[in-house]
Amino acid sequence: MDAFDILEKVRLEKPVVHHLTNWVTIYDCANIVKVFGASPVMAHAKEEVADMAKIASGLVLNIGTLTVDFIDSMIAAAKSANEKGIPVVLDVCGAGATKLRDDMSFKILNSVKIDVIKGNASEVARIAGEQVATKGVDSSDVEKDLIEIAKKLSGERKCCIVITGKEDIVYGNGKGYLISNGCDMMGNVVGTGCMATSVIGAFVSVWDDIVDACAGALVCYEVAAEIANETSKGPGSFKNNLFDSAFLLGRSDVKKRIKIKSL
Amino acid sequence: MDAFDILEKVRLEKPVVHHLTNWVTIYDCANIVKVFGASPVMAHAKEEVADMAKIASGLVLNIGTLTVDFIDSMIAAAKSANEKGIPVVLDVCGAGATKLRDDMSFKILNSVKIDVIKGNASEVARIAGEQVATKGVDSSDVEKDLIEIAKKLSGERKCCIVITGKEDIVYGNGKGYLISNGCDMMGNVVGTGCMATSVIGAFVSVWDDIVDACAGALVCYEVAAEIANETSKGPGSFKNNLFDSAFLLGRSDVKKRIKIKSL
Amino acid sequence: MDAFDILEKVRLEKPVVHHLTNWVTIYDCANIVKVFGASPVMAHAKEEVADMAKIASGLVLNIGTLTVDFIDSMIAAAKSANEKGIPVVLDVCGAGATKLRDDMSFKILNSVKIDVIKGNASEVARIAGEQVATKGVDSSDVEKDLIEIAKKLSGERKCCIVITGKEDIVYGNGKGYLISNGCDMMGNVVGTGCMATSVIGAFVSVWDDIVDACAGALVCYEVAAEIANETSKGPGSFKNNLFDSAFLLGRSDVKKRIKIKSL
Repeated sequence: MDAFDILEKVRLEKPVVHHLTNWVTIYDCANIVKVFGASPVMAHAKEEVADMAKIASGLVLNIGTLTVDFIDSMIAAAKSANEKGIPVVLDVCGAGATKLRDDMSFKILNSVKIDVIKGNASEVARIAGEQVATKGVDSSDVEKDLIEIAKKLSGERKCCIVITGKEDIVYGNGKGYLISNGCDMMGNVVGTGCMATSVIGAFVSVWDDIVDACAGALVCYEVAAEIANETSKGPGSFKNNLFDSAFLLGRSDVKKRIKIKSL
Repeated sequence: MDAFDILEKVRLEKPVVHHLTNWVTIYDCANIVKVFGASPVMAHAKEEVADMAKIASGLVLNIGTLTVDFIDSMIAAAKSANEKGIPVVLDVCGAGATKLRDDMSFKILNSVKIDVIKGNASEVARIAGEQVATKGVDSSDVEKDLIEIAKKLSGERKCCIVITGKEDIVYGNGKGYLISNGCDMMGNVVGTGCMATSVIGAFVSVWDDIVDACAGALVCYEVAAEIANETSKGPGSFKNNLFDSAFLLGRSDVKKRIKIKSL
Repeated sequence: MDAFDILEKVRLEKPVVHHLTNWVTIYDCANIVKVFGASPVMAHAKEEVADMAKIASGLVLNIGTLTVDFIDSMIAAAKSANEKGIPVVLDVCGAGATKLRDDMSFKILNSVKIDVIKGNASEVARIAGEQVATKGVDSSDVEKDLIEIAKKLSGERKCCIVITGKEDIVYGNGKGYLISNGCDMMGNVVGTGCMATSVIGAFVSVWDDIVDACAGALVCYEVAAEIANETSKGPGSFKNNLFDSAFLLGRSDVKKRIKIKSL
């Protein structure tokens, strides 16, 4: 898996990545996709989501500020994406926090083909049917063996599972990666998790091996975060620097810093 | 009132602060709460707001981009917060600008218990039944004696009143503060008022004396703004620096700069 | 046409610029208007848009994340603006990408008087009835002679046409400008197009000659972008610097850098 090869393909092909995401980090989702070289488009009207998905190369769904109508639009977009054969990434943001989030996550998963399920430990554990308590949308320590959860859920849902945290787990199609890039400062800024999902959306849009694409996306994004952090005073300058370092990310940066192992 | 003691408690307890806020500054509301050490959660679906309020320690309502449905969700969330006994902060953003804003502000105030009403001079004056003209959502000079308005409204609504401006008035439970921190640059950036409300939401989430918590929130936030301003070239770098300085704010910063007097 | 004279009037009069815009760049639209000295207000509830337009000096409509209900609110706001006689600017963001966007753009144009239609080449070409393919919301090369399209559409719709790109075309009332300011970095950041529209909204709010106001807005905004770019490392620092340079923009900056010619 060469993470930078995938990024180069994103920069070359500039795939349109259609998003139905939350209203908090929607700008950051769009901008991180843009600075990595892809072309974000945000559209959620039920009358146009199917059409928009048809001109896209990938679809990102994020339930952060879901409503019931919005989930219906997500399903319509995903059906269109499924028909076209483009990958669909689902961020189960806040799953476990309320019954609605759980119900709607399962409604999506049971209505359409999802290619990547992404969340933090407690969110993904909840989707896997494990009982965990979520405190808002922040990650929480979960005792369960996360790799086993990823493997089991991947088999059940026939998709790639991404669990982000201090170490990220990517698992699908019988193979997986553990990624140790990133920095603590990411936890002090709203939107770093959502942006990770959007970057995954850009990478899977151009690369056939979806597990490699997810891992490559996290590596590039988190290496950019490490670089950004080195010249930051706090979370404000960090987020700003992150857009710069993602835009400027070079092959040698990734080569020097990548911390990945196979599972 | 030791403002920094309250901030330390926020950083220690990391309270979940549930928001139903506007779509313009929603990111900044979440991020300022995050960098001050609390855990923001934004959720507005009528099916989940009551559940989300139940796992929160405080609720922030901001009518900046209100719709009638959204106000119904706010009321459902606030009822749940009232039942649980957690504080509810209402930013009457833009009150006085349209009949809808006035009507909906009063609908909220007459439907649920609000612990803090916050706005600029003309907004709060309008809620107090004084005739003033609002020019959009910016503050305007109001001739009425604002402290008297705060006292009267506090008595009538049995809550804490926060009026922000060059000097901020905090009044409730028969006591009050006048705060003179902050800087002119805050008036050149969209969202500084909304962020103040969200910081208040974080502070009242961990502190029983709600008047002290409101005053402490404004002191910490505005001292952070003063520090940010010292290294800013304009409103862009200022807002960025504000997230840094809020994150890094230390006891000595507050001690050195605090400008507060009792009313 | 003295671009800086118009900016000075914006700074002096601080016009309220009412927006119904998209959820991606709504903050940036508000903030760029603010840092240029005007007073943005964002309000979309169908019950208040007419009232809000009545206290504004200009109205900006941007269909970036349209829904059918939202378009109804836009039309209600624009009718109110038409009655009051204040200018209405329409950004046909993403026109050509889906049938809904085309239908809704024409619905607006056929329901109310629009004073400025603004988009990139492919968006405006679509509104002019030319067949072009849009790849998401990014600009694309269009073979048609854009100046001819602007002239024709201006005559048909009796309004000013603004087509942004490497060179910007402004045409209306039988006269026009070609503007060559700006920098490539603008294309690497989400929201630069939307912000341009909002700045146009601020400038037309204070200036009778709407073609001059549109051209002046683009000149000032793009000169600010050039200045921002000179001290930027990438798109993150660029956007931040842009808010600073727009706020600090001086007459000599504009005089030194302006690149405009009459059509």
